[in-house]
Amino acid sequence: SAAVGGAGYLAVKPYYDKYADPKKEVCFNHDIRKDVEKVYDIIDVEDLGEKTNFCRCWRSKKWPFCDGSHNAHNKACGDNVASLIIQKKQTSG
Amino acid sequence: SAAVGGAGYLAVKPYYDKYADPKKEVCFNHDIRKDVEKVYDIIDVEDLGEKTNFCRCWRSKKWPFCDGSHNAHNKACGDNVASLIIQKKQTSG
Ligand code: FES
Ligand code: FES
Repeated sequence: SAAVGGAGYLAVKPYYDKYADPKKEVCFNHDIRKDVEKVYDIIDVEDLGEKTNFCRCWRSKKWPFCDGSHNAHNKACGDNVASLIIQKKQTSG
Repeated sequence: SAAVGGAGYLAVKPYYDKYADPKKEVCFNHDIRKDVEKVYDIIDVEDLGEKTNFCRCWRSKKWPFCDGSHNAHNKACGDNVASLIIQKKQTSG
């Protein structure tokens, strides 16, 4: 039985390799407003703080803001995604 | 040989099903600055236009800005991701 399984693994490997294509498009938004066609967020400049972190990993519980969840995603699969930071220029003095 | 392959398919299916988990973490940044640990982008408010579209699908050729590539990603896999829009408040009159 173990031998059959082993032979079968080799037999079907090319089929499954298709699914292992690292560039295959897969959904990565699992939870955020899945009821809408496209998740846009519109933010007024006037509502920004000195430094605002926006999520681009689709895992934040504080969407559209970054809560650090990108670290768990990156660790789980070896990715390197992180946030967009919008900052107001430093006032001198 | 076909029979062995079939049996093998059933034998390894539970193993491969793991990879079919729709919520499994997979890398979705394939091309953007893969040489850095985390892709942050820092934008000064002063450099924003009236309306600036920032990419959150990791497919834009104009990164960190949106170029509409999220549509192809969404179509390819049934996702619903889209950009972050930062806008300056409309001036009246
Ligand atoms: S939590 Fe998503 S980019 Fe930080
Ligand atoms: S091109 Fe990536 S969100 Fe539009």
